[in-house]
Amino acid sequence: MTGSQIYGALLGDTEIADLVSDRAHIRAMLDVEAALARAQADSGIIPAAAAGVIDRAAQSLEIEPKELDGPTYQIGVPVVGLVARLRAAAGDDAADYVHWGATSQDIMDTALVLNMRAVLLVLEQRMGALAMRLAVLAREHGATLMAGRTRTQQAVPTTFGAKVAGWIAPLLRQLERLDEVRGRLLVVQLGGAAGTLAPFADKGAVLSAAFAAQLQLGQSAMPWHSQRDTIAELGAWLATITSILGKMGQDLALLAQSEVAEVRFAGGASSTMPQKANPVLAEVLVALARHGTGLSGTLQHAVVHAHERDGAAWTAEWLALPPLAEAAGAALRHGLTIAETVEVDPVRMRASLDMASGTVMAEAASFALAGHMPRAEAKALVTRGCEACAASGQTLIEWLRDAVDVDVDWEVVGDPANWLGTAEETVERVCARVDQLAGS
Amino acid sequence: MTGSQIYGALLGDTEIADLVSDRAHIRAMLDVEAALARAQADSGIIPAAAAGVIDRAAQSLEIEPKELDGPTYQIGVPVVGLVARLRAAAGDDAADYVHWGATSQDIMDTALVLNMRAVLLVLEQRMGALAMRLAVLAREHGATLMAGRTRTQQAVPTTFGAKVAGWIAPLLRQLERLDEVRGRLLVVQLGGAAGTLAPFADKGAVLSAAFAAQLQLGQSAMPWHSQRDTIAELGAWLATITSILGKMGQDLALLAQSEVAEVRFAGGASSTMPQKANPVLAEVLVALARHGTGLSGTLQHAVVHAHERDGAAWTAEWLALPPLAEAAGAALRHGLTIAETVEVDPVRMRASLDMASGTVMAEAASFALAGHMPRAEAKALVTRGCEACAASGQTLIEWLRDAVDVDVDWEVVGDPANWLGTAEETVERVCARVDQLAGS
Amino acid sequence: MTGSQIYGALLGDTEIADLVSDRAHIRAMLDVEAALARAQADSGIIPAAAAGVIDRAAQSLEIEPKELDGPTYQIGVPVVGLVARLRAAAGDDAADYVHWGATSQDIMDTALVLNMRAVLLVLEQRMGALAMRLAVLAREHGATLMAGRTRTQQAVPTTFGAKVAGWIAPLLRQLERLDEVRGRLLVVQLGGAAGTLAPFADKGAVLSAAFAAQLQLGQSAMPWHSQRDTIAELGAWLATITSILGKMGQDLALLAQSEVAEVRFAGGASSTMPQKANPVLAEVLVALARHGTGLSGTLQHAVVHAHERDGAAWTAEWLALPPLAEAAGAALRHGLTIAETVEVDPVRMRASLDMASGTVMAEAASFALAGHMPRAEAKALVTRGCEACAASGQTLIEWLRDAVDVDVDWEVVGDPANWLGTAEETVERVCARVDQLAGS
Amino acid sequence: MTGSQIYGALLGDTEIADLVSDRAHIRAMLDVEAALARAQADSGIIPAAAAGVIDRAAQSLEIEPKELDGPTYQIGVPVVGLVARLRAAAGDDAADYVHWGATSQDIMDTALVLNMRAVLLVLEQRMGALAMRLAVLAREHGATLMAGRTRTQQAVPTTFGAKVAGWIAPLLRQLERLDEVRGRLLVVQLGGAAGTLAPFADKGAVLSAAFAAQLQLGQSAMPWHSQRDTIAELGAWLATITSILGKMGQDLALLAQSEVAEVRFAGGASSTMPQKANPVLAEVLVALARHGTGLSGTLQHAVVHAHERDGAAWTAEWLALPPLAEAAGAALRHGLTIAETVEVDPVRMRASLDMASGTVMAEAASFALAGHMPRAEAKALVTRGCEACAASGQTLIEWLRDAVDVDVDWEVVGDPANWLGTAEETVERVCARVDQLAGS
Repeated sequence: MTGSQIYGALLGDTEIADLVSDRAHIRAMLDVEAALARAQADSGIIPAAAAGVIDRAAQSLEIEPKELDGPTYQIGVPVVGLVARLRAAAGDDAADYVHWGATSQDIMDTALVLNMRAVLLVLEQRMGALAMRLAVLAREHGATLMAGRTRTQQAVPTTFGAKVAGWIAPLLRQLERLDEVRGRLLVVQLGGAAGTLAPFADKGAVLSAAFAAQLQLGQSAMPWHSQRDTIAELGAWLATITSILGKMGQDLALLAQSEVAEVRFAGGASSTMPQKANPVLAEVLVALARHGTGLSGTLQHAVVHAHERDGAAWTAEWLALPPLAEAAGAALRHGLTIAETVEVDPVRMRASLDMASGTVMAEAASFALAGHMPRAEAKALVTRGCEACAASGQTLIEWLRDAVDVDVDWEVVGDPANWLGTAEETVERVCARVDQLAGS
Repeated sequence: MTGSQIYGALLGDTEIADLVSDRAHIRAMLDVEAALARAQADSGIIPAAAAGVIDRAAQSLEIEPKELDGPTYQIGVPVVGLVARLRAAAGDDAADYVHWGATSQDIMDTALVLNMRAVLLVLEQRMGALAMRLAVLAREHGATLMAGRTRTQQAVPTTFGAKVAGWIAPLLRQLERLDEVRGRLLVVQLGGAAGTLAPFADKGAVLSAAFAAQLQLGQSAMPWHSQRDTIAELGAWLATITSILGKMGQDLALLAQSEVAEVRFAGGASSTMPQKANPVLAEVLVALARHGTGLSGTLQHAVVHAHERDGAAWTAEWLALPPLAEAAGAALRHGLTIAETVEVDPVRMRASLDMASGTVMAEAASFALAGHMPRAEAKALVTRGCEACAASGQTLIEWLRDAVDVDVDWEVVGDPANWLGTAEETVERVCARVDQLAGS
Repeated sequence: MTGSQIYGALLGDTEIADLVSDRAHIRAMLDVEAALARAQADSGIIPAAAAGVIDRAAQSLEIEPKELDGPTYQIGVPVVGLVARLRAAAGDDAADYVHWGATSQDIMDTALVLNMRAVLLVLEQRMGALAMRLAVLAREHGATLMAGRTRTQQAVPTTFGAKVAGWIAPLLRQLERLDEVRGRLLVVQLGGAAGTLAPFADKGAVLSAAFAAQLQLGQSAMPWHSQRDTIAELGAWLATITSILGKMGQDLALLAQSEVAEVRFAGGASSTMPQKANPVLAEVLVALARHGTGLSGTLQHAVVHAHERDGAAWTAEWLALPPLAEAAGAALRHGLTIAETVEVDPVRMRASLDMASGTVMAEAASFALAGHMPRAEAKALVTRGCEACAASGQTLIEWLRDAVDVDVDWEVVGDPANWLGTAEETVERVCARVDQLAGS
Repeated sequence: MTGSQIYGALLGDTEIADLVSDRAHIRAMLDVEAALARAQADSGIIPAAAAGVIDRAAQSLEIEPKELDGPTYQIGVPVVGLVARLRAAAGDDAADYVHWGATSQDIMDTALVLNMRAVLLVLEQRMGALAMRLAVLAREHGATLMAGRTRTQQAVPTTFGAKVAGWIAPLLRQLERLDEVRGRLLVVQLGGAAGTLAPFADKGAVLSAAFAAQLQLGQSAMPWHSQRDTIAELGAWLATITSILGKMGQDLALLAQSEVAEVRFAGGASSTMPQKANPVLAEVLVALARHGTGLSGTLQHAVVHAHERDGAAWTAEWLALPPLAEAAGAALRHGLTIAETVEVDPVRMRASLDMASGTVMAEAASFALAGHMPRAEAKALVTRGCEACAASGQTLIEWLRDAVDVDVDWEVVGDPANWLGTAEETVERVCARVDQLAGS
């Protein structure tokens, strides 16, 4: 949580917090001013000497965040205060050429893009690392039988590996999507006062290209200062990262329940109950997903942006995006920690399957019988068996063996390992994609 | 914005930030532990001497937020780490009686209530101050004619005083509601491990009452640790504060538009355009409303809380509530600054009314004519007049004087000051309520 | 779900849907026009004869919703089309006095209040019925032992009655709050074109009072057409109804899990798995809470309302409020059905407590030992015991009996029924409040 | 608005409503069952004859939505009731092979994908049509001078064409993104009871491929029943469509203001004010954006999905997605209507530029002077001029001509047409992309 030291490790993320910090914000704005000056020199708009001075001044200038607080309050953006400092640093001859023809939003939006480029790189690395660690876990448990659970009920057998594959697949999908998000997001913003680049006369297009080149960013069809769909897309992607980790956290918190106990978390001691081991990080993943989703909504609302600059909609982004980026970072970090440390208990998983008189094999039994009688009859028979076993405690397979005289190898039918379908190949297919990722 | 020094004054609020800071959080938790010990001594649960030692230790103990970061990450709550520190401070004889029979959530929820009590007091004072300042403005402009605008169109005349009264009325309503919010929110949480107060045997009720008395808080029908509707209610109230200020900001930003220019903001200089005076704080009010609304939604989601404690839902509150409180604080602070400094231009307001050939008086003209012809006919005639005047530039009143031969004093009908209805008494009624508030 | 017949019973609510239907909307608008005419006659604004004609015409007029579709699309509100129909029905002499001096929003907002009054009455009745049914359940299970569960882990014993009391308490709190919501919401809106009541000259206040009297509604300090905090408050209350039911649904869905099986739902058959009994309505409660919370956010955003009427913000309310009201209705209906039909299994509940070697009694054991040794030592010993029992399967109480030589009646300490604290009195306190409600 | 006939044209969309209607839902589910049977015959899982019978039965079967209401309420999904009807229609010999090995979610999710494929096709066509119509408008007004407005203030000149290009660019970006959304969304779901395809033994992969081929859908790496990120992505995309149209609506509503009056909307008559022309559809666009954003958030929350099927999270999607799709459809439909009918007033646009003493040319003047004096001095001089002109009414250009003796052609500098930078080429660049779209 940006700003809290108590909850920093639990709810925040130091590395991402740094990348969206005041200092990173200032540094990025100065880098943008420097790149603009260099691009303007390249385009013949300002003298090369002035650009050199500005570039060096911007590189070495250190501005304390607190110094910008007053001007930002007065003016609504920190750029005016920052430019004043940069002009002073550049000295009389070059001062005039600082921020030449640009508007605050050019600097801030492009700086935002730079900061987000760095954030996305970290998130991508963590996603890759998480996918790889989960792939190890998935393969390790490719044959670990457990109950598939639908609508809170044990349904049919599956494997823990298949469950883990189900956490990996969205990560791979969102990694793929990340490239698309980047394609639209990592572009310069340069429009001047209202998007026309008027001060550059006929050199607008040349300058834009040079500016983009300086920062190794792309260009959009036109300045995007009042088109915020790409920011909303970034927000939705970040929220999705928190959400897919939230799903993993939700699964694990449910598996960690006392009555299920198929996984166990380290830590999580209680202040009063000696026997507890709370799945803290799993729960935090769900909390981050809820928070991330709320913040993303604010960015989506901010797409409704008035005219050539909407001080309200734009400012709302500044409130919501930094904590959202940090939430995504924290979620991935916790995800990796969990993947590395969670204790999986195959014995308990197997025991859960035998619970409830082995009725988790009802579907299998039903299909086995369907080879010997109409399917509806088979299903009705099995349903009757489930009810009988619930009362008597007899296992379903035994009950069926007694109840019907058909040529079925009930031993085979009753073994969950024989009712796994494609679970194993699914794990391998998903993990192979992770391998490709790792290899690339 | 908690954590940013650049945007602190613009988007955050120092006073509220302090009240929801790490230090305030630690202080409140220590105060709760102290109050619990005292209440337990009063109830004969722990020795009075131990309670005295704990009380003094808690009062003087200083814990650096950073020290709790590790334990909080390990355990998911800061209380275990804090209790360890308090036990050490209390010394061997009293250590055992620290946090006696309580659970982390008892301490954290009650501490939250203490912090929110302080926050609500500040917000209440600001709401009162804002209402009073706005009442001065409303009375000052009780006769300042301006266009009432509906669906972006000038509709009929109103007064700036009436518009300001429309900003005051929700403040008064939310002040009234604040008492109700407090009644449900400002209650202790004491339930022990899962809400049964088991360690206190038959002294649970006595202890709860003593605990509440120590902290001057109320009691709910039962421990509320897993009932989070009151937190959501607080969140909705805080979001409503940001929203009603957002409406004031929206109105003012629209009035500040270059083409309307009926109000003017100080500051708001542009980095490139010398002529601009951006309504920065008005826009920030709208931004805070959007952000506050998003955060409030997260608290509403967190009401879906599993069993006797839901680590995910509970943790989500910690993420959303502090920035929400700060947003409400910033909104009220900016509201007051605006109320004190915004420049109102009655001449421009009057000029707007005369714009568009005085067709803002169409309703008045229509009613005047309705005394002399069927109303539908009157309305049709006036509509025709509006169209004609739009083309010719003639004023509607002149056109009507020429067009119809009826006994109407068109001078009187065409004067916006004669078509204000209850505007003046409305202002007085609303302001009188503010006076009562001030007097109480 | 308004509009779906497939999902009507599952996700919607016929009774509430009717109260927010097109027909109810038209009826309420006609009632408002009638009341306005009567009030204007009472106030000497229009002829009594005309008011009588309008009143009768409005009462008997039937307008097909489809007829208003075209005019509503053209004009943005259905009132103009509706008024045209009412004028035609009233006939030439009275037509002129229909909708005299009112604006569309006066009619629509007051009609909304009428419809919401009816909705709130139904919801209140359901809340009362649900609270009473839950009180029966809570008392019935006042001594039904079950595990209190915190952060997914069994914590200490509680009773099912206490859990149910925890579902009742928020209902009672929100019933109390409902009166407050009503106090602010159930007021007429009458402002004329822009809130000044100009067409009524000095009779504005008298008319407002007469209008309110006709509809048995209250009056606010001033017209509230552009002050939407009360609508947002209604929305937050409705969302809270869905949320507190969502918490009940979440608890029950978790209790219905195969591995917990402490409650059982009728219905919920699977299309392929014979053994399942999905807790369908419990899950739907959570779904309605998520949806209700999202819709409520839209209403909160709509408080940012421009000038004297904001076509965008106002229209957003029409989109979000009807489905939100229906979601609250469906949630309460399902809640009552669940309360009436859910099968509670005290034997399973008791068995859960004995699970895990009876370590759910760890806190109790720890406190028992604390009478004979320092508390930290006691807790450490119990923790050791929990670990040992997890490995050996021995019960904690047996382990402790062997491990320490202290004068503790371990039989008593190990009995969950002796570690319930105030559970029983809590149930009685909460249920007594329901009794009062029932008696009042 | 699904379900309302009064507001159907204004807030809803008939075509999209049909595509997400009960009937379309039933039809898609039957189509999926038919495709499954055919694919299973192709894969040698069920007899070809049975598949033929099922296929024909599914094609001709008509199920009234109301018939599924009861079963859906009982079971939580409509599939069981639908399958029962399909079995009856298929007759005794084929009945057993209906829905063979599938689970409800396979049918519903794949049916959802089919319905969404149709919805996306309509939306894509509308986006294309809108882009083309806007391109006509943009080129038509490529030289129509107007004020660029930032933070509510006139900033520098731009063109109406450039503004329209700013509405087109996000449409093109979201069309590009649509292909990506489709790539991930338009895939079959086939997993059987819990995602393992167990009933199909080693034919799972073959069947999945055949099933996808039958429906001309893609395949994901593994069944996605519990991975809802693609649904959230769809939701975010739909919300973005409403948001970018909301931005267009916001701009137009602001331009339609009485004091700006640079565009005019047909319709929008008031019930009491003859002179008004409310920008109804523009406001509705903003309302739809707010509503769409709220609904999208619910889908994002639903990504947190428990285990192999989460009845709560899944059901929440059914509540939020249909109205969201309809909101996107309505927004595009209104956008096109507006683009076709809005009246643009170049004369008023030009007049706005001359307003305020021509100080909108301050930036241009400042740059002109910067060729003759230090830039800071130039800016200070112009600022002084702006203040002087605000007081005197003199134009800025005249004031500067008098104030400074520099070799500047003030006539040229003061002409907004000379301070447009890249506006014209921007319009052409964006429109050329639309041409490509049209040509492709």
